[in-house]
Amino acid sequence: MEGLAAYTRKIEAGLTAVDFPTSPNQLYDPLRYFLTIGGKRIRPILTLLGAQLFSASVDKAFPQAISIELFHNFTLIHDDIMDAAPLRRNQETVHVKWNNDIAILSGDVLLIKAYQELGKIDPAHLPEAFALFNKTAIEVCEGQQMDMDFEIAENVTIDQYIEMIRLKTSVLLGCALEIGAIVAEASKKDREALYNFGQHIGIAFQIQDDILDLYADPDKFGKQVGGDVIANKKTLLYLTALEKATLEQKEQLRQLENEQDLTLKVERTRQLFDQIGTKQICQERMSHHFDQAIHFLQLIDVSDSSKEPLQDLSEFLMQRDQ
Amino acid sequence: MEGLAAYTRKIEAGLTAVDFPTSPNQLYDPLRYFLTIGGKRIRPILTLLGAQLFSASVDKAFPQAISIELFHNFTLIHDDIMDAAPLRRNQETVHVKWNNDIAILSGDVLLIKAYQELGKIDPAHLPEAFALFNKTAIEVCEGQQMDMDFEIAENVTIDQYIEMIRLKTSVLLGCALEIGAIVAEASKKDREALYNFGQHIGIAFQIQDDILDLYADPDKFGKQVGGDVIANKKTLLYLTALEKATLEQKEQLRQLENEQDLTLKVERTRQLFDQIGTKQICQERMSHHFDQAIHFLQLIDVSDSSKEPLQDLSEFLMQRDQ
Repeated sequence: MEGLAAYTRKIEAGLTAVDFPTSPNQLYDPLRYFLTIGGKRIRPILTLLGAQLFSASVDKAFPQAISIELFHNFTLIHDDIMDAAPLRRNQETVHVKWNNDIAILSGDVLLIKAYQELGKIDPAHLPEAFALFNKTAIEVCEGQQMDMDFEIAENVTIDQYIEMIRLKTSVLLGCALEIGAIVAEASKKDREALYNFGQHIGIAFQIQDDILDLYADPDKFGKQVGGDVIANKKTLLYLTALEKATLEQKEQLRQLENEQDLTLKVERTRQLFDQIGTKQICQERMSHHFDQAIHFLQLIDVSDSSKEPLQDLSEFLMQRDQ
Repeated sequence: MEGLAAYTRKIEAGLTAVDFPTSPNQLYDPLRYFLTIGGKRIRPILTLLGAQLFSASVDKAFPQAISIELFHNFTLIHDDIMDAAPLRRNQETVHVKWNNDIAILSGDVLLIKAYQELGKIDPAHLPEAFALFNKTAIEVCEGQQMDMDFEIAENVTIDQYIEMIRLKTSVLLGCALEIGAIVAEASKKDREALYNFGQHIGIAFQIQDDILDLYADPDKFGKQVGGDVIANKKTLLYLTALEKATLEQKEQLRQLENEQDLTLKVERTRQLFDQIGTKQICQERMSHHFDQAIHFLQLIDVSDSSKEPLQDLSEFLMQRDQ
């Protein structure tokens, strides 16, 4: 997608231009740092494409696109504390480079900054955009809590898992798109379809993330293949395997959780998943959500050619190998 | 103030009625707990009085009053993590009763809930209320960061200290009042005066807090008298003493910081402060801000009788001994 790079540069420039005061620098230095360590910037691009879909200029939705990316980065800063993650995009996380207190407080101020950027919308559209943003932000927190709960839960169903990823990651894609559509004064019906498109793309994207963790090409994958297996994470692969496994295979899965040789652990788990047919079942589930997304995109009452950028972006996201 | 208790009950009822989902309960139980452990509820009452001052019904500003109190409680939950505080209002803090991760995330969701309540305003007033809320929320975070910075700073001036308390606590009182005035469609000029009234009352209140820490009646004071002295906190008393002290007194102050006998430490520090005249200087500074507050209240273009509840509340706040 040649157009994507131009949008990414636009967003990067916008993030660099966010007006943080110099003082107190312990509050704002972490934000200046974190917002410039990169990222795919998919969410703000969705806001721009959401506006463009309904013939609004992307510039009109630009502050709202930045708002969505600031919100996303707020969640990353706080999630990194909760996950005790040392690195993000191969750079030190805020709570490691500074400390937990600073990561909490600079995350807080970033969330408020996200609201401030959102507020640059035409006042006539503020109530709708604000309500959608609030609802989404709450859902993202609920998704993060569910994710933490699942770490210690005995049983997690596949439906619960899909609901967790819907809240934690997918609703924000729907919201990003719909806020672009609100700026462009799209109809309620079109906005809903666009939101659903984003939500299903988000779920498909997250399922692919789970699959790639174990099945990515190690030469292209940015991180260790099998990281989720090593961490005994309850991913869709794992939950699917557990659901379809025979009693004997379940026992093998349980034993592998305590395997100390990590290379062997990843290798054996992959073999067991292959026997069970896990990858294929997950790919079918991913395709289902991708198809649903395309279905909702088709419902939108604009020309097919207007939909091409979103169609292209979806396909680009689904073809990634990292 | 007989009217105050009725308002407090109204706010308590409103906080109990905030609609938190049951699930995920690890996210919402801490909020149900924290919002019902009490508090003076001064800030939301200011919002109600701000509306009433301009002849609006207090009910009209009720969701916004709740919004202000939710915001305040969000800051308390996160500040308690940063201060490693075990107790709040003699009850366990959220990060102690649950854990840090849950305190971070439930604080986050509470901030978003505060925005959601704010959003129940008449859409015509949303842009102004939203902008004021965002500006204030950012300032409160900046004040908290300055407070943390001062703990390790070598030199803190009295002006810096006053600016810190202005941001950390006073702007929220101004904001609480002005949001009530926005709901009541007060003029820009009256709103500004009311905001300034609140800000100066806030500074006076905070100075009194510093004075009470060392000079309160131990039988009436809710916590240990001299807690700030024991913790070597750079309060206004301390900074004022340091500014006015002779070289010899400065040396004595420095030595007292390392005094292990805590009763003696508090006693000797009080004696030294008394020699320097610290309490009186701080009281004069407090009176200056109280007078400023009253000056701004007088500027507001409504009848004197309409101002009585705010005048009474200010005097009530200044007469407290706990």
